[in-house]
Amino acid sequence: MATGAPRQGFLSRLLPASGSEQFFDLLEKHADRTREAATLLAEMLEHNVDAEKQAERVKDVEHQGDEITHAVIERLHQTFITPIDRDDMHRLISRMDDVLDLIEASSERIWLYELHTIEPEARAFAAVLVKSVKALGDAVRGLRDLRHREALIAHCTEINRLENEGDQLLRRAVARLFHDSKDPIHVIKWKEIYDNLENAIDRCEDVANVIEGVALEYA
Amino acid sequence: MATGAPRQGFLSRLLPASGSEQFFDLLEKHADRTREAATLLAEMLEHNVDAEKQAERVKDVEHQGDEITHAVIERLHQTFITPIDRDDMHRLISRMDDVLDLIEASSERIWLYELHTIEPEARAFAAVLVKSVKALGDAVRGLRDLRHREALIAHCTEINRLENEGDQLLRRAVARLFHDSKDPIHVIKWKEIYDNLENAIDRCEDVANVIEGVALEYA
Amino acid sequence: MATGAPRQGFLSRLLPASGSEQFFDLLEKHADRTREAATLLAEMLEHNVDAEKQAERVKDVEHQGDEITHAVIERLHQTFITPIDRDDMHRLISRMDDVLDLIEASSERIWLYELHTIEPEARAFAAVLVKSVKALGDAVRGLRDLRHREALIAHCTEINRLENEGDQLLRRAVARLFHDSKDPIHVIKWKEIYDNLENAIDRCEDVANVIEGVALEYA
Repeated sequence: MATGAPRQGFLSRLLPASGSEQFFDLLEKHADRTREAATLLAEMLEHNVDAEKQAERVKDVEHQGDEITHAVIERLHQTFITPIDRDDMHRLISRMDDVLDLIEASSERIWLYELHTIEPEARAFAAVLVKSVKALGDAVRGLRDLRHREALIAHCTEINRLENEGDQLLRRAVARLFHDSKDPIHVIKWKEIYDNLENAIDRCEDVANVIEGVALEYA
Repeated sequence: MATGAPRQGFLSRLLPASGSEQFFDLLEKHADRTREAATLLAEMLEHNVDAEKQAERVKDVEHQGDEITHAVIERLHQTFITPIDRDDMHRLISRMDDVLDLIEASSERIWLYELHTIEPEARAFAAVLVKSVKALGDAVRGLRDLRHREALIAHCTEINRLENEGDQLLRRAVARLFHDSKDPIHVIKWKEIYDNLENAIDRCEDVANVIEGVALEYA
Repeated sequence: MATGAPRQGFLSRLLPASGSEQFFDLLEKHADRTREAATLLAEMLEHNVDAEKQAERVKDVEHQGDEITHAVIERLHQTFITPIDRDDMHRLISRMDDVLDLIEASSERIWLYELHTIEPEARAFAAVLVKSVKALGDAVRGLRDLRHREALIAHCTEINRLENEGDQLLRRAVARLFHDSKDPIHVIKWKEIYDNLENAIDRCEDVANVIEGVALEYA
């Protein structure tokens, strides 16, 4: 981008609705898959489900997300006018895909590590993640009409708040883990799962930052 | 980039061959270094080589890669017209350098951790990495002439396939590691090496994604 | 960015001083916060300070850094002309914020892990980080006047040198950790702190690379 070029994308307003709509449809579909994956992960930690089967369901959902991501990127390369700045769109779908990848990585490890007791903080983490992913879907849906961006920004603020909650949760979880457990293997396993869950929540904040940036440009 | 600007780079077709050639030469040289590093790493896990000396050879190769990367970025900042989109070129060489860095990090740890027995999954991992890095070199070589992009896309597809293979390998390796080993220090060491190897294979996929994107734009 | 567009930002020279000054003021304020955080962290490892209180002070400083980062990004989205290329500015403040985040993460873990003895390599690491963050501040200050860019590039070269020093330090620290310690929990804790410190030093190098790139464009 030349320094002086504003990223207003005013041309996009001339874009036939259908072209823009397809981008927004894909983003919303991706957000829906992510929400589904987060819900499956939370179930895995709440109830006595078959970890292997549940992890495979999450993997399936993640594959669907991958296909949506590829469709967005392909379209991005082949479309002359994009509804929001091309680089922002790229950043947006990439960060959204990171969230889904981290959810899948978490569920896989819960299965793989044969964890027979679930740490209570893990459940609390999953609950925060589900809320965060829900707010993310709401923010993504808000991109369709940037004239009403107060709600969109409220969703982003909520994601930021949840990220702080996740941060505090991680601190408590890790402190208790090292304090209570005398089994290093147990510590290694749970530490990795906590880090993955916290990363997933952090990446939601990255998505929110991209969305806020887009909203600001259209101010 | 202004939203409406297509990233066709049609101007680049007017570029005197020599300018473009230098970019492609550098990218190919970098890919060659990466392949050399991966081969050295695989040897380290296959045969009874002196780990310290081999790790130092990989470090040398990685330094050469760093210099090539710097040359590309410097040229990128000082050249008016680039053969492929400037941001894509930046992303490409950065991700390529990530692959090489992770190979070097893996070989350093194998030496540093004084690992006297090599886990069989590590050898399988290195074999997948060598294949992936080879396909990456082939894909990079395909950038010179985007009119024949079917072969280029086939190399990218192969890198994607290998990434899935690496993923399954990691799952098996980690499951066995936690299942068999009662020694947490052993687990910590190998887990980090596996994570590095899998990350290297993942970064190859990132490179493939950038290359596919470039190919699509020139469709 | 269209392929053919040079990123000279010559328009920025027409920018009223006040607009540019605000960007540079914010970047320098951020660099000052980072230096403060690094100094607090070094104190934490040097002297017998109250780890919880010190970690909270670092957290406060990191929050101030976050606010500065948000102010830069907001301004970036709303300003027609930026003193340096918009993407470079975005990369710059993002990488600068990564450094500060990693310093905060390190200090939090030192407190959280209730580490009663400090490994000597941790002190050496903190000393390298403080130097690196200082050079980073000097390089950032150099952005105001790119006509005198020799000094700026010297600061970047110094950051690169310090990164190599950090690298060698990590190697020694990790080798000794695995060699001396028979307590896996101790290994897990210190390994994470070393990795965080080394990452912080690595991210300083990323910042230096962005700054060097900017300097090259204005050559």
